[in-house]
Amino acid sequence: MTRAWAVGLDMGGTNIRCAAVSVAGDVILMEHGPSLASRKAGDVAENIATQTLHLLDTARRRGHGSPRAIGIAVPGPLDVQTGTVMQAPHVAAWRGYPLRNNLERLIGRKVVVDNDANAWALGEYWRGAARGRRDVVLLTLGTGVGGGLIVGGKLVHGRSGMAGELGHVTVNPDGPPCDCGSHGCLEAYASASGLRGLVENRLGLRPGSPLPLQIVDSEKNFSVRGLSAQARRGDRLALETFAIAGHYLGIAIASFLNIFNPELVVIGGGVAGALPYMRKTMTAQVKARAFTAICSQAKIVRAALGPRGGVVGAAYAGLHPVMRS
Amino acid sequence: MTRAWAVGLDMGGTNIRCAAVSVAGDVILMEHGPSLASRKAGDVAENIATQTLHLLDTARRRGHGSPRAIGIAVPGPLDVQTGTVMQAPHVAAWRGYPLRNNLERLIGRKVVVDNDANAWALGEYWRGAARGRRDVVLLTLGTGVGGGLIVGGKLVHGRSGMAGELGHVTVNPDGPPCDCGSHGCLEAYASASGLRGLVENRLGLRPGSPLPLQIVDSEKNFSVRGLSAQARRGDRLALETFAIAGHYLGIAIASFLNIFNPELVVIGGGVAGALPYMRKTMTAQVKARAFTAICSQAKIVRAALGPRGGVVGAAYAGLHPVMRS
Repeated sequence: MTRAWAVGLDMGGTNIRCAAVSVAGDVILMEHGPSLASRKAGDVAENIATQTLHLLDTARRRGHGSPRAIGIAVPGPLDVQTGTVMQAPHVAAWRGYPLRNNLERLIGRKVVVDNDANAWALGEYWRGAARGRRDVVLLTLGTGVGGGLIVGGKLVHGRSGMAGELGHVTVNPDGPPCDCGSHGCLEAYASASGLRGLVENRLGLRPGSPLPLQIVDSEKNFSVRGLSAQARRGDRLALETFAIAGHYLGIAIASFLNIFNPELVVIGGGVAGALPYMRKTMTAQVKARAFTAICSQAKIVRAALGPRGGVVGAAYAGLHPVMRS
Repeated sequence: MTRAWAVGLDMGGTNIRCAAVSVAGDVILMEHGPSLASRKAGDVAENIATQTLHLLDTARRRGHGSPRAIGIAVPGPLDVQTGTVMQAPHVAAWRGYPLRNNLERLIGRKVVVDNDANAWALGEYWRGAARGRRDVVLLTLGTGVGGGLIVGGKLVHGRSGMAGELGHVTVNPDGPPCDCGSHGCLEAYASASGLRGLVENRLGLRPGSPLPLQIVDSEKNFSVRGLSAQARRGDRLALETFAIAGHYLGIAIASFLNIFNPELVVIGGGVAGALPYMRKTMTAQVKARAFTAICSQAKIVRAALGPRGGVVGAAYAGLHPVMRS
């Protein structure tokens, strides 16, 4: 009832999750809402503030009192020192947008902002697969590929908070174009959009053309789940697509191992569900490319928290700003 | 005369540099000797101990008294917690060799060991190009490619001290073989051995065949300096070789930028002298592949300390074990 708690808000391209998280990392309350990501810059921020204020109100009515901190995770690289979003893949209007200042004005309280992959990494570190580990590489394989790095028990932010863009290491200099403007990035293979591109390429389709019914959802969008189901049935296109994605995922992971000598590589996000179909080619590349001594010290595991990871980590970011230096 | 000081010893494939370094980072005394790297495991260690004891003796005779600490840098990944060398490119006999224990027994004092690229990174951080910077990627382009990472003002060691193998990130999955057993590593392009391979490939020579006289030294070994001189004269083979190396160096640096969001990328080692011939293709890849906001915050500069970097950094490692966590 009167446990100390923090707000953890996780904004995705479509939905917002907003939770009251206890200082022990338990989700006390959870509310959902739309992201309204295609609106004007100020409207998107106002929507975040409205949902935060709604949660604060709910919490107050239920006798939880005031939060100790407010942590807000949004997509895309942002400058954590100034709280400015540099660019956000799903919010076109946020380019150099002073998110933290505006949220603090609208909410009337101090706010900590960080990017969604960093928040999720903190969540896994606090309550998930990376608990108690000091050197961890975390990869989210979703619509794109995000990353979070924990080195010596601290989240790596770099000069201004944009570190950890692990989806945008080059795994094949001659590879397919990536949404970031480069080509041959990890994201161009091991994300939902990368897999879609591989399938289109395989079928000789132009980008955006209608896909076979087995691999689209009810709204005709490409479905990783559908492609996985096809792989489970032994479909060759699906199996080969995942094999290619796994191959390049393994190349990237081998580089991360040689760079970080981590204890753990944690893989989450929607595409992680297809790891069984990627693991063989992934492991082959990891073993061929990473130093044996480094390889033997690192485990590659699935994320433990699922969609809760973001809100738990965002709350942690609010509660433990020092961890984030 | 009575300034506090530490031993900094830097062992390369051919030579050992052993210095008395003041707590302010000034080299007070410097001695040189052979590495004897092809000898038996114990003999190589004994040689290090002998040179250290010789320096201690010289220092004592000159009135400097005893050192505060002894820091020793050796090539190859090593487990800094146990002081065990996992494998060393130039010392075949060191495989799982308990170097620190043996040195402490032979020298009769506590010793800190680290790898040479890490020591050099600490040197540049303490007294060189990276002074006062908190987020730095350091690359040594020598016979091979080594790396040192400073994140949030601390050297990154990873789980057991093997982090920072930046020469062994994959920059081209279909690239030439690398001495580490993989292929398409950065080292296979942007090191002396990588450049030699590119030249051989270009000339249709088998590995190890005699090379044109302009690009070998007096002992008929491949000479980066010779290749640079050829490039300066406008020789097409030399210019194209450096352009290829720069291209892949740029791909790697772009990945490091997106991973670390550093303030600085510092490039040292013998091959760094040829940067003018690599810079154009390097910069093109960095700009094409790294996030613009990250790119605009990072400078790419030459190392400042040269060969002194290793001994200065080794001494620092001895004096500041906390920095190394």
